[in-house]
Amino acid sequence: MAGKEGKCCFVAEINVGIVGATGYAGAELVRLLAGHPAVNLAVLTSQSYAGQAFWEVYPHLYGYVDMVTEELDPDLLAERCDVVFTALPHGHAVAVARAVKSRGKKFIDLGADFRFTSAETYQQWYKVEHTGADLLGEAVYGLPELQREKIRGAWLVANPGCYPTGAILGLAPLLRTGLIETDSIIIDSKSGVSGAGRGLSLNTHYCEVNENIKAYNVARHRHTPEIEQMLSALAGQPVTISFTPHLTPMNRGILSTIYARLKDGADVGGLPELYRRFYEHEPFVRVLPPGMLPGTRAVAGSNHCDIGLVYDPRTRRVVVVTAIDNLIKGAAGQAVQNMNIICHLPESTALAGPGLYP
Amino acid sequence: MAGKEGKCCFVAEINVGIVGATGYAGAELVRLLAGHPAVNLAVLTSQSYAGQAFWEVYPHLYGYVDMVTEELDPDLLAERCDVVFTALPHGHAVAVARAVKSRGKKFIDLGADFRFTSAETYQQWYKVEHTGADLLGEAVYGLPELQREKIRGAWLVANPGCYPTGAILGLAPLLRTGLIETDSIIIDSKSGVSGAGRGLSLNTHYCEVNENIKAYNVARHRHTPEIEQMLSALAGQPVTISFTPHLTPMNRGILSTIYARLKDGADVGGLPELYRRFYEHEPFVRVLPPGMLPGTRAVAGSNHCDIGLVYDPRTRRVVVVTAIDNLIKGAAGQAVQNMNIICHLPESTALAGPGLYP
Amino acid sequence: MAGKEGKCCFVAEINVGIVGATGYAGAELVRLLAGHPAVNLAVLTSQSYAGQAFWEVYPHLYGYVDMVTEELDPDLLAERCDVVFTALPHGHAVAVARAVKSRGKKFIDLGADFRFTSAETYQQWYKVEHTGADLLGEAVYGLPELQREKIRGAWLVANPGCYPTGAILGLAPLLRTGLIETDSIIIDSKSGVSGAGRGLSLNTHYCEVNENIKAYNVARHRHTPEIEQMLSALAGQPVTISFTPHLTPMNRGILSTIYARLKDGADVGGLPELYRRFYEHEPFVRVLPPGMLPGTRAVAGSNHCDIGLVYDPRTRRVVVVTAIDNLIKGAAGQAVQNMNIICHLPESTALAGPGLYP
Amino acid sequence: MAGKEGKCCFVAEINVGIVGATGYAGAELVRLLAGHPAVNLAVLTSQSYAGQAFWEVYPHLYGYVDMVTEELDPDLLAERCDVVFTALPHGHAVAVARAVKSRGKKFIDLGADFRFTSAETYQQWYKVEHTGADLLGEAVYGLPELQREKIRGAWLVANPGCYPTGAILGLAPLLRTGLIETDSIIIDSKSGVSGAGRGLSLNTHYCEVNENIKAYNVARHRHTPEIEQMLSALAGQPVTISFTPHLTPMNRGILSTIYARLKDGADVGGLPELYRRFYEHEPFVRVLPPGMLPGTRAVAGSNHCDIGLVYDPRTRRVVVVTAIDNLIKGAAGQAVQNMNIICHLPESTALAGPGLYP
Repeated sequence: MAGKEGKCCFVAEINVGIVGATGYAGAELVRLLAGHPAVNLAVLTSQSYAGQAFWEVYPHLYGYVDMVTEELDPDLLAERCDVVFTALPHGHAVAVARAVKSRGKKFIDLGADFRFTSAETYQQWYKVEHTGADLLGEAVYGLPELQREKIRGAWLVANPGCYPTGAILGLAPLLRTGLIETDSIIIDSKSGVSGAGRGLSLNTHYCEVNENIKAYNVARHRHTPEIEQMLSALAGQPVTISFTPHLTPMNRGILSTIYARLKDGADVGGLPELYRRFYEHEPFVRVLPPGMLPGTRAVAGSNHCDIGLVYDPRTRRVVVVTAIDNLIKGAAGQAVQNMNIICHLPESTALAGPGLYP
Repeated sequence: MAGKEGKCCFVAEINVGIVGATGYAGAELVRLLAGHPAVNLAVLTSQSYAGQAFWEVYPHLYGYVDMVTEELDPDLLAERCDVVFTALPHGHAVAVARAVKSRGKKFIDLGADFRFTSAETYQQWYKVEHTGADLLGEAVYGLPELQREKIRGAWLVANPGCYPTGAILGLAPLLRTGLIETDSIIIDSKSGVSGAGRGLSLNTHYCEVNENIKAYNVARHRHTPEIEQMLSALAGQPVTISFTPHLTPMNRGILSTIYARLKDGADVGGLPELYRRFYEHEPFVRVLPPGMLPGTRAVAGSNHCDIGLVYDPRTRRVVVVTAIDNLIKGAAGQAVQNMNIICHLPESTALAGPGLYP
Repeated sequence: MAGKEGKCCFVAEINVGIVGATGYAGAELVRLLAGHPAVNLAVLTSQSYAGQAFWEVYPHLYGYVDMVTEELDPDLLAERCDVVFTALPHGHAVAVARAVKSRGKKFIDLGADFRFTSAETYQQWYKVEHTGADLLGEAVYGLPELQREKIRGAWLVANPGCYPTGAILGLAPLLRTGLIETDSIIIDSKSGVSGAGRGLSLNTHYCEVNENIKAYNVARHRHTPEIEQMLSALAGQPVTISFTPHLTPMNRGILSTIYARLKDGADVGGLPELYRRFYEHEPFVRVLPPGMLPGTRAVAGSNHCDIGLVYDPRTRRVVVVTAIDNLIKGAAGQAVQNMNIICHLPESTALAGPGLYP
Repeated sequence: MAGKEGKCCFVAEINVGIVGATGYAGAELVRLLAGHPAVNLAVLTSQSYAGQAFWEVYPHLYGYVDMVTEELDPDLLAERCDVVFTALPHGHAVAVARAVKSRGKKFIDLGADFRFTSAETYQQWYKVEHTGADLLGEAVYGLPELQREKIRGAWLVANPGCYPTGAILGLAPLLRTGLIETDSIIIDSKSGVSGAGRGLSLNTHYCEVNENIKAYNVARHRHTPEIEQMLSALAGQPVTISFTPHLTPMNRGILSTIYARLKDGADVGGLPELYRRFYEHEPFVRVLPPGMLPGTRAVAGSNHCDIGLVYDPRTRRVVVVTAIDNLIKGAAGQAVQNMNIICHLPESTALAGPGLYP
């Protein structure tokens, strides 16, 4: 893990723009990039707060970010920036992408618009027409641990959804090695509230969330096809899953409890070693020692994905548990990781360091 | 649901003793029974607080319960009480049960000692010898919705565990009707912290729990065989499950997300009606209207089990979600419900009423 | 404290209407009155949810309240009800009050419109004109412990604000007996979030409140003059206070920490006994034994106000700490208490019982 | 505020030992110093976990800190370290201090043993004899904003308590300028639970803290004389205060609401400017713009103290509100700040950066 290295001698020369900077994922981008030694924050846009100082909207950055948020002008933005991030609801990234492309800049979308290889899948689950289907072939799904080489050459990176990040990382070693029955996968995820964004809704009212846990969008959450797309690629065959998200009374974190049945003859004893080796050179995936299971508290504030697993001989199921901070490894941190890759910077720049505990 | 009826004209004539009254489940028994019109609280015992006024230990009951807690003397207790409740760690109820039996009184155990028909199963999972195996044949597993008639005639009721209550109620309609593949069942449960009791442990320290969610005892939690025993009885064949408990940052509540694959040819469309009719005369089970899913907030403070379900045609799995208050329907409330049954009182006495929201 | 008495033999004959039933205070009125043996819920109105079943808005009441919420029609409402409650933002109760008055019914307002004897004070702090100034002389400030006799004969009761309830009850014994310097009073209050209502605002977004405590409306909160009005009446002279409310990450509860300097020669040793006797016949005020201080957890879910106090000889200040459930003693419970008084019912009907712990 | 500067070109050459590394304050020291470019973590001691890998005790540091904790041996420790931190309960730092002194090393104590100039005051409030009274004259109270020059030359720094840090910083401008009546000061503080440490106690059990706020140690908290000592020094005369701490359901943060009456003739209009200028060169104190009040969320994870103030003309009181992260500016962060000063490093080394939000 990056500790004291990688701190020296940058010149802040990459001009960065963040579209949708006043949402929670956008604000994490601001925080991380304000501390990134190679980055100059050039533009912050906001629909709701345009014209206000950023610190009025996010008081923790008072004294750190003096910029005033602007309305979005895609062409001007692309003109002024080398790298553009969008943290917008789906359907809004295409126009920005075109402006960025036409000027030969880089683009990292934290929304869903460029995550699917198939416009049909997108349209089926998101219920809107895809206006940028011609760009899908140029987009790379930005999960660095599995796609690093593709990302390196991309101008357009589709940053993964928060749930898919932990789910896919948890299953990749099993699917790559063909150890599990692909129709047996169940992903039961528990998310903190920040994943729902800063927008106002009864679902995020303190009193409705506090002392409450509930499932939502059962069997129809939009991250389902995104997870399936990557799992299918890993397995080399179509994979259909059950995925259930839950809203949990905490700010940050996603814990995914993943169930899959091992194929007959699979090497049960080798599972811990399989995981250890699969991720041993990854700076942000920590495969925990046997007997230790992840909790969201231990990754909150960091770009880590922690993974633990248990094999149950009674049912022949393996239970994989993964934990991430949904705003960092599940959104802004992973986006910065992708930026570091496409800008040929050390991958953990501005992302090193553990989280806060407690 | 019981509203205004059932409030009149009792004489408090059942002398009740509560062993382990200063744990959270014990204290809920005290609260519920202090408001029970047919009950006279006769004895409260506590190992940790013997000799102290109960309200010193539980300030919400200041002005309601003036009793001083005592050390446990099983014979004296059985002498003074008509009904004895024990809310103790496993292994401690046998001696009390023998004392109660010898005097022909009633006994309701909130612990695990009498939940299994097989002493071997108990010994295998709890890692202690069962010293009361001779009594197991007389014990009735006290889940009223499925066992009411057996409970009615029992002197010894084994009150179900908190996780099993919500899990079994969620699966009973499917297993009774043989609709699901019995080897496909996965129960993913999320519990509030009060289920861990009031004892001190780093696992219940505020800062360790808050802003954290984690799985524990994966593939080896002791409620697993308890759930399997009842599910097997319902299915008429041995059922093996995957069960994963999680610790969630809230005081009360268990949400269980239950996955099972339907058999070929199962009547998918009839599922909502199946559930509605299965529980339509139950005062404490609320099958929610289609489209509505339970949350723990809506049952906290009540004796309800709320149930919702979703069928996923993509995977042929049904997802059943159940919510209970672990201290009430999952412990003390269900115990009072059992007492009402064995004492031939209206079943919802002292249990009627919705929970607190928010 | 009311335990098992008071449960029998009512006939539900008081028709009650609740205006603004889908706010948190309104929903607590619904819950409490649905369990009130003398009450028939006749009308529930809601601006936001008119036409929906009440349980769709508040799922904890599924199976308890089958009513559909209506739009407000003051005349029809007054026609159909014997007692009308309003739980509305200030400025909206006057029209309802006039309709109720013209039909000779009873009216309990949980808002601020009738709390002040002076329309000027209201207008100065609430920044709107008072359209019902002619009614102010008929309104009684509904703090039963201090105003019981006046309430008994009233048709129009102004239910106190949540902060004033705990603040005034904490100071009344000191001011009645003239023990403190009236210009030395500081009230520092900490409230749960439900006091801010169910309306949507960034201030009640889960992530903004959780892991956060902050002061708001310092030196200008509208409950200040309401507190001062009653304190002045108790002292027999004008009292000006410092009052600071804080938003605390919890659903229910207000803790008020109250500071006042004793006059020279005041009988310090007699303070505990003064408080004990002042409230000894009150069913809902619990003066805690010396050495015990209140917490909001011990009153949540109940209609209690718990009071503790400490004298500090170093500063000659007495520190009084009071705790209430803001939705019950601070709103709906106190309103039901007022209804019981004006309807000549036992005062604790539908309000007896301790809260939930934990 | 330190942003991108100060990141380059250190050689880790200061050997540091942390005594009591497995408490919350100790673990924050480990985290901060593991990321400090000039520090080599040499020794971590722990009474409870000696012999265990540090990451077993604090899983967020898995992959960052590979050290095994040791039992304390003061002489060996002083031998191996250039700077020693102690994060122990009071009474345990003297032996370590003597060992450190005899070897000419530096010592920073996060406990109370060296905070008082008078051994009598310590003995009166802490109820134990002071065994190191001879060292008190060499200790410097380590509040950098007020004591920077004294700290610079010290070998023994007494790191302030968590409550005193926010209280003193909030009052210093007023007392230095003589603007307030010194007998009018009331400090009402609300702390997160981590301030109580990681030790087990019913007071820190999740269910007892959650949904609860309560005052404790009213008029007798040990931080009272510590606050008074500094306030008296600032005022140039003895100052006696009322101080009330409260336990709040959150992990981190202290909000202090401070009340003081202005002297007649004090320049009310100049207060904001007074504060702004008093702290304008301080890297870690942020005086918020008028109209903005601090919350703990905006400082959590950072070494900041945020300050806001309101003047109330009705009472002639000024209300100052300060917020800190109790584990950082209130403990470990301030200790690192002190180390940076005595080691002549840039003061914000390893401390720069805003907190996490939300």
